[in-house]
Amino acid sequence: MILDLFAADSNADPVPGPAADEVRLARAYLTRVAEPTVPALTALVSEVGPVEAARRVRAGEGLTEHVDSATRARRHTDRAEADLEIAAARGGRLVVPEDPDWPHVALRAFDGVGARDSRLGLAPPLGLWVRGTAALADAAHRAVAVVGSRAATDYGRYVAGDWSAGLADAGVTVVSGAALGVDGAAHRGALAAGGTTTAVLACGIDRPYPAAHTRLLDHIAAHGLVVSEYPPGTVPARHRFLVRNRLIAAFATGTLVVEAGARSGARRTAQCALALGRTVMVVPGPVTSALSVGCHAMARDPEILVVGRVVDVVEAVGDVGELAADEPRPSRATDGLDPEVLRVHEAMPLHAARSPGRLAHDAGVDPRGVDAALTVLERVGLVERAGRGWSRRPG
Amino acid sequence: MILDLFAADSNADPVPGPAADEVRLARAYLTRVAEPTVPALTALVSEVGPVEAARRVRAGEGLTEHVDSATRARRHTDRAEADLEIAAARGGRLVVPEDPDWPHVALRAFDGVGARDSRLGLAPPLGLWVRGTAALADAAHRAVAVVGSRAATDYGRYVAGDWSAGLADAGVTVVSGAALGVDGAAHRGALAAGGTTTAVLACGIDRPYPAAHTRLLDHIAAHGLVVSEYPPGTVPARHRFLVRNRLIAAFATGTLVVEAGARSGARRTAQCALALGRTVMVVPGPVTSALSVGCHAMARDPEILVVGRVVDVVEAVGDVGELAADEPRPSRATDGLDPEVLRVHEAMPLHAARSPGRLAHDAGVDPRGVDAALTVLERVGLVERAGRGWSRRPG
Repeated sequence: MILDLFAADSNADPVPGPAADEVRLARAYLTRVAEPTVPALTALVSEVGPVEAARRVRAGEGLTEHVDSATRARRHTDRAEADLEIAAARGGRLVVPEDPDWPHVALRAFDGVGARDSRLGLAPPLGLWVRGTAALADAAHRAVAVVGSRAATDYGRYVAGDWSAGLADAGVTVVSGAALGVDGAAHRGALAAGGTTTAVLACGIDRPYPAAHTRLLDHIAAHGLVVSEYPPGTVPARHRFLVRNRLIAAFATGTLVVEAGARSGARRTAQCALALGRTVMVVPGPVTSALSVGCHAMARDPEILVVGRVVDVVEAVGDVGELAADEPRPSRATDGLDPEVLRVHEAMPLHAARSPGRLAHDAGVDPRGVDAALTVLERVGLVERAGRGWSRRPG
Repeated sequence: MILDLFAADSNADPVPGPAADEVRLARAYLTRVAEPTVPALTALVSEVGPVEAARRVRAGEGLTEHVDSATRARRHTDRAEADLEIAAARGGRLVVPEDPDWPHVALRAFDGVGARDSRLGLAPPLGLWVRGTAALADAAHRAVAVVGSRAATDYGRYVAGDWSAGLADAGVTVVSGAALGVDGAAHRGALAAGGTTTAVLACGIDRPYPAAHTRLLDHIAAHGLVVSEYPPGTVPARHRFLVRNRLIAAFATGTLVVEAGARSGARRTAQCALALGRTVMVVPGPVTSALSVGCHAMARDPEILVVGRVVDVVEAVGDVGELAADEPRPSRATDGLDPEVLRVHEAMPLHAARSPGRLAHDAGVDPRGVDAALTVLERVGLVERAGRGWSRRPG
């Protein structure tokens, strides 16, 4: 069963429509003030609501020591209105938990995880800056994250693109990080197949990064979504990629690592995905390739699946049925025959006839068994009578 | 722990020396009369001894229906003396369970398995025709079977040879089937590294098959062993390869499949190895290669390990210690630093200085946290004071 990660939460209170302006402004402020998002701030927002939480943070009062420390450096930087205007000018918006298309089910995976493993930075986002016309709930309805090395080989880029096209064919959204290498090939493969793809950025949605992907990001926004928890103007930085990776993992039912070196960021995405209870898969590659070392190391984890075909990915993330999962097996005329019958067949030379007695000796099969075997072999067209003996049928 | 599969059986009766001639002649006769070896004949030999079992088979009396049927076709073909002479002329011999170097422990894996899964043909051999100077017990002391496709790619042959050399370096004997492709590369790799290798044939030890490996087989016999359960003169046939594969599996603690197509015989060897309680490993390869399809399909079996490095093989089959199993990881100056410290480091531009206050804002870190981070970063040599601020240290 595919989890419909982005379906509306049927247990939640009814959501009548978009959030009020003050709620959106409060959350826009909070997405800038706390980086990375900490579970303690999320807890405060849940407790007192975003408007009151933003007021307390701004005033530096009524905060726990942890929230106070996490927000002290930027609490006087309030650019919420300007950020919303910049986003709108780029065709973007801030989606907040109070909106109908907030991905409640996908992000519920974070419940309790942050407390268990704070080093993974596993708090849910306070809001999501989004560019693109699709609704989050539609775009990420059935999704697989395709991630891997920026320094991917031709092999990695080929597989990322080819399999992402296959996933798109199966109606699966491809989630990735818009980076060079595997990420870019994955987005392009999905788009080329007419599918939907979601790029989750480690910078503002107004920042085309990497610059070489400026047009690709526009193309993604036109056919899918560009998403970030960072406000406009945020520049990419190493620590943001690590934090961003948890969202790539959360926004997909399964994470597929195509190529990864010994210390690839994709391995962290895989760790996050496992911590969030998602399926993690790796694409094997040549053991002689440094870019497959990370994949093969991950394959040693019994929780991680090795997948050799795109249908294995579709199968692993759900019961889809668009693709036949039967392994291709060339068929032979001798398939399914009893071992004794096969021995009689083998004992028969290619271009000469043999008596049943000689066949019994050469095959080491009881004469009665030889008679039975010849009957079977004649029926399936493998042997024919030749004088008083038997011979193989040509072809 | 490496199982010492070929150690003398400490629970067996003391074995004073080579078996008596009549025992050897009886078993030589039996290795020709029953093909493939059936558990019912093995049981008869255990019950009444090889000399009496051979007498009964020859006379066609005192046999169960099953043994009678399995031996009827060839019971009058007794070439035992001639077979022993032919073997001796090729520097070979027949090793029987009554000899001191019979591999009791390795073959004990068959106990009860034949009854469970007779389609695998899992009866132990009645005797082993052996060419080479090494004692069976020495040659197969610590062994890994390296198997795969005859139509191997350059990749498969390279990995088979390279890893077999690595196994030889670690003191592990390489067992294989002397076929073209993976088998040949495995034997050659072990020999090139000065190691020991065992070839288990599906034909008589006097038959150089394939012809292209005539010199290789001589080389193997000079530095290891060439083994077969088939008497001299037996020609290779498809059904014999399938039966032979169970011995390759039994003669090693672990079986490594290097390249396998969708219906490779190596997959059957792997099935046998699992049925015998052995470790099975597959070498991954490009998902774009038809010769890795079988390996990746096997990798879906949770009982089968995916190995990306030769040290993984050594580790999987035993606690050897000759090779360091630490994964190679390039180290960075920032390794092991706290995420908050890393954020401060990231916030510092490459060629300009920053005040602690500005760093606190840009990194979103509490000013006290910035001071602590700068202390750490200075200690590990990543930053230095620059006027009233701080800058990154070059390099």
